Amino acid sequence: MAADRVQSLLSNEQLLPLLPVLYIAWVDIQLTSLEGQCIRDLASMLPALDTDSKATLDTWLEPEQPPTATELARLRHRIQRLAGRRRTTLAALTASMQPGVDRDLIAAVAAYARERQISDAGAAAAIFDDSEMPVRQDFAEQQASFDPVELQAILEGEYAPEWALVRDILGTQAFRYDYGDSIPAHRDAVKRWLAILAERGLGTYAMPAADGDQANMPAFIHLFQALAMFDLSLVVKFGVQFGLFGGSILFLGTQKHHQAYLRDIATLKLPGGFAMTESGHGSNVRALETTANYDAATQEFVLNTPTVSARKEWIGNAACDGRCMTVFAQLETAGENYGVHAFVVPIRDASGAALDGVRIEDCGHKMGLNGVDNGRLYFDHVRIPRENLLDRYASVSPEGGYDSSIASDDKRFFTMLGTLVGGRISVAAASITAARKALAIAIRYGALRRQFGGGDGVETRILDYKTHQTRLFPALARNFALHFAVEHLIEQFKQRTPETAREVETLAAGIKSMASWHAIHACQMARECCGGLGFLSENQISIIRRDVDVFATFEGDNTVLMQLLAKNRLSGYAQNFEQDLVISVIRALRDWAKTELVEGNPIIARKTDEAHLRDAAFHGEVLRLRARNQLVSAARRIRKRIDNGIEPFTAFNQIQDHLLAYAQSEMQRHAGEQFTAAVAALADGPSKDALEALRQL
Amino acid sequence: MAADRVQSLLSNEQLLPLLPVLYIAWVDIQLTSLEGQCIRDLASMLPALDTDSKATLDTWLEPEQPPTATELARLRHRIQRLAGRRRTTLAALTASMQPGVDRDLIAAVAAYARERQISDAGAAAAIFDDSEMPVRQDFAEQQASFDPVELQAILEGEYAPEWALVRDILGTQAFRYDYGDSIPAHRDAVKRWLAILAERGLGTYAMPAADGDQANMPAFIHLFQALAMFDLSLVVKFGVQFGLFGGSILFLGTQKHHQAYLRDIATLKLPGGFAMTESGHGSNVRALETTANYDAATQEFVLNTPTVSARKEWIGNAACDGRCMTVFAQLETAGENYGVHAFVVPIRDASGAALDGVRIEDCGHKMGLNGVDNGRLYFDHVRIPRENLLDRYASVSPEGGYDSSIASDDKRFFTMLGTLVGGRISVAAASITAARKALAIAIRYGALRRQFGGGDGVETRILDYKTHQTRLFPALARNFALHFAVEHLIEQFKQRTPETAREVETLAAGIKSMASWHAIHACQMARECCGGLGFLSENQISIIRRDVDVFATFEGDNTVLMQLLAKNRLSGYAQNFEQDLVISVIRALRDWAKTELVEGNPIIARKTDEAHLRDAAFHGEVLRLRARNQLVSAARRIRKRIDNGIEPFTAFNQIQDHLLAYAQSEMQRHAGEQFTAAVAALADGPSKDALEALRQL
Repeated sequence: MAADRVQSLLSNEQLLPLLPVLYIAWVDIQLTSLEGQCIRDLASMLPALDTDSKATLDTWLEPEQPPTATELARLRHRIQRLAGRRRTTLAALTASMQPGVDRDLIAAVAAYARERQISDAGAAAAIFDDSEMPVRQDFAEQQASFDPVELQAILEGEYAPEWALVRDILGTQAFRYDYGDSIPAHRDAVKRWLAILAERGLGTYAMPAADGDQANMPAFIHLFQALAMFDLSLVVKFGVQFGLFGGSILFLGTQKHHQAYLRDIATLKLPGGFAMTESGHGSNVRALETTANYDAATQEFVLNTPTVSARKEWIGNAACDGRCMTVFAQLETAGENYGVHAFVVPIRDASGAALDGVRIEDCGHKMGLNGVDNGRLYFDHVRIPRENLLDRYASVSPEGGYDSSIASDDKRFFTMLGTLVGGRISVAAASITAARKALAIAIRYGALRRQFGGGDGVETRILDYKTHQTRLFPALARNFALHFAVEHLIEQFKQRTPETAREVETLAAGIKSMASWHAIHACQMARECCGGLGFLSENQISIIRRDVDVFATFEGDNTVLMQLLAKNRLSGYAQNFEQDLVISVIRALRDWAKTELVEGNPIIARKTDEAHLRDAAFHGEVLRLRARNQLVSAARRIRKRIDNGIEPFTAFNQIQDHLLAYAQSEMQRHAGEQFTAAVAALADGPSKDALEALRQL
Repeated sequence: MAADRVQSLLSNEQLLPLLPVLYIAWVDIQLTSLEGQCIRDLASMLPALDTDSKATLDTWLEPEQPPTATELARLRHRIQRLAGRRRTTLAALTASMQPGVDRDLIAAVAAYARERQISDAGAAAAIFDDSEMPVRQDFAEQQASFDPVELQAILEGEYAPEWALVRDILGTQAFRYDYGDSIPAHRDAVKRWLAILAERGLGTYAMPAADGDQANMPAFIHLFQALAMFDLSLVVKFGVQFGLFGGSILFLGTQKHHQAYLRDIATLKLPGGFAMTESGHGSNVRALETTANYDAATQEFVLNTPTVSARKEWIGNAACDGRCMTVFAQLETAGENYGVHAFVVPIRDASGAALDGVRIEDCGHKMGLNGVDNGRLYFDHVRIPRENLLDRYASVSPEGGYDSSIASDDKRFFTMLGTLVGGRISVAAASITAARKALAIAIRYGALRRQFGGGDGVETRILDYKTHQTRLFPALARNFALHFAVEHLIEQFKQRTPETAREVETLAAGIKSMASWHAIHACQMARECCGGLGFLSENQISIIRRDVDVFATFEGDNTVLMQLLAKNRLSGYAQNFEQDLVISVIRALRDWAKTELVEGNPIIARKTDEAHLRDAAFHGEVLRLRARNQLVSAARRIRKRIDNGIEPFTAFNQIQDHLLAYAQSEMQRHAGEQFTAAVAALADGPSKDALEALRQL
């Protein structure tokens, strides 16, 4: 917020009557967008505002930019001076700001006070009784040791323009939020919002500017992450349209598909989705049952849903809006099955009616994300042209001949899936934002709310209770660690080569799981730490909590992904995991024996002085050692089982919980290292000190 | 379910056309109430059913009473025989059940199949392809080692009639459930349901049958617990009306109040609520700000809300339906404040309009429990007769003289609160039911759902994965442990005397916290273990998860309650905690030194043979030792701080996390002991074996 914002408000004659309303709105815990709207309505009753006045008002009605304690104090003193003496109602205060305030405005302020439950006593006390307003004085006492603007710059890095763009869009009137909307109303709002994002060009980030160019996926992921400040249904629908639908055509299709579809997807002229998951197969997508049979006679693929469990399920944008889908199905031609491939399949006509042979159902009410129209799709021998096969990795000739640069069906399928890793990274990034928002609300509330306390009559701030701190602050520290891990991952993703692609996918699997579980946990803590108010939808935490819950499931079930991570680490990405397993395990055991001799054990030193306990190198070593020991002991247990003649699949299943524990340790080690590296890279200063304190925690 | 249920269905000529529909509905994971309704609609198209037929159909449409694998197999075989050959649609199957099935019915079945997404292939496979239906065969293979009916009898004990009564009521048509209802529709439904419960006499359980009698609170708590099988909004509204509103008048009022109100409360003629919590004070209710000033001139109390933070908040039944409230306020008479007392305060007239001086607001949309109309109340100098003071523990004479049998304001207040401990016990009990329901759904789903798997082409049941087991089974074991802890608590509550009242309150605080946290955790695990389906409202887990979240907050914030438990254990219930603290701590330390000498340490033995590790006495000893060590070390840390001149309040705050850890250990010890005692009390047999296996876990 600009430093001269108070000055421009206090020196603005037009806005004087609004000072009491603005002050009262902000002196409460947070100005909500609903309050902002009410105040805008009041402002519309003033004589026509000039551009300066409008701009000043806008900066004061930005929910994400609360005034500082000093700014509020200056505002209060001005009101006190203008009012002259104690006024007992908000309306009377308004009237006293300048001579001749419009009577209708005063009446409207009175109505506003009633509607917003601002009692006369409360309003008067807020303006005149310093002693009854300890809240903001607390803030004044406890000025942050660092500059929030600088910290924000550190967090946003080179993607600050994307964050600023999203903030700018979300700050507009169209993004007012009504809590507790019905499903249709919420879906309509999300659709409207998405159209605005497309209009503002956000869809184009996921597309190359010209043929042959790269899409700016890192910037797109940051847009996705920044949008998570607002409504997660919008985030998901945004991701479905541009990231999944657009991305599948970009990465799995070839030039003819790019030319035919990408522009219309970016502008939302062609709303679509990504139809992979089936009722019977969510995690094990290699076993999808939908079939795409090639009919050489007509040069068409015939899409079919042979069983109930083959129906496409949970498909975002399918229940209402999608016209076209990237559908994954078993490709069969000339009597041979070549595994799962992707096809562009129109599902609705321009009027929105389902096409012949396509049955569409609404998945119905969900725990959260009800602004997303998830649906089910059934195909009854639906015919699509041969060209609709997304043929970057495999093609079918007019005669039905199959050709692919990747011979192995499995390898081809995982290569295709690998190109879509951006979705997992995006979910990880959005999880961080969601948790950050919930924690910010809860920590701010903890700094205001008082309950119980010492003998001096002033109750204790609940944030000063140790139980409150141990619930919120470690979650905050984790949020930063994971933030830097996500940033590192996006950087790796940007620079990926065919050689590093598997490592990027492995990290994405682990970080997506850790970040989404963290978001669920952090939002839960934030909810409980705000008591009943955390349960109330208008305070947003419980909405985030509900929406974020499914982040543990979609774009890959966390438990499955964490095992993928563990297995990749164990096998060194052996092409054929089960056969190469024994070799990998033996190699791991041999390497471990070697390093143990030269490295020693940092725990044995058992130094307990404070400097040692706060030392980043020590932390790194401890986290590394734990992860490695778990990996090696897992390898030993598997080897023992295999030596005893147990099948690899069963051997892995028997120590699944061990693998999961290892995967968590490994990701904690990784996130810790990224946090340490990020802090080390900063110039000395208060921001670095603040982050270092969190890192130690 | 009666053993002859299949026979009565298969031998019933009238119902034959419904066999395929019934079989398909049940062979799915669970028959939903919506499916039940559709089938009833189909049944209504049959020639008028006789009483027997109706009764038989009812038993088959009871969602809580799924048929066994054997029953389903018999049903399938009959359909196969009647159909003669493979039929490819559900409608065709229906037509083949007997000659001359009504054409309209067949058409309706076809529509039903479309609407319920029963594919032709799926229906045919379910009836004719044994090989394609491994699901139910799994169930058949894995017959439970125990008799579910016997286990149910063990769990319900002497309160089986209350459970049966609730099952009977919930099984009726009126209790159909629509997922994703709007708030007004959900509230209306809850109101309707509550009226039925009142009509069926459930409200009277919380009231004495005649003056001088006791209310049957243990039975009432079991009704509350059993209702949690259904909708938690109804449970809460039921508790507010009969438990809190009725209970406060019963326990805090005297005969004149009982005669004036109890009957109308039990019949719902007088809907009301319990207005304690204020915006500024939820946990520290001694510091409530609402005032009740006695005006001797008119012999009235004047209720007033002096500040915004004094408004009553979260008051169940206040936003829409309540006519009258038990309001807690600071009693002031003749210029003296005597602390918080309870008053009966009418808030709405018979037409539902707010009375003069009473302002009522709706709290708005919440994370869950949206069927409960929580509201805010403001009193602007509202006058009520002197008699409306609930005067069991204190009275005010017409002249304004204050009289109480308990001299200390604090002690009087806590005595009043203590009479309301039933609310906390009820929340604990309902938490167990809620978690049980979510776990049952998730475990059943885990036994059906397959994903990934070995080389034989059949995917592995997800319940056979170790990660799945370690997420669900410990939660199931905890559910049983807490179940027995709650049963023990209810028994203690029933037998409580003035001497044991504090211990009952302490246990209630701890068990309510453990049970509600457990329910949140168990529902979360259940949700994640069902993947996306867990997120879908119609599968109920996410609805329970959302509703149960606030159980950690209401009837006392868990974190605060757990500290209460720790402090009570530390201080031995010293009347004035802070002064007697040092003495208590010293005594605890001395006792500990004594027992250590005689008892030895069971951990030192370090036996690791299986029998020892499964031994209940060993478990008990370990849990006891951990709790005691944490208690004693907490006492030592406090003593050290007090010796160093730190104030007791601060000393406690500094080791809050230690106290919380102790409280959890202490409750785990307690629940473990109750589980062990309950298992030990059973006759030998499979039920005991099954429970013992869970106990060991």
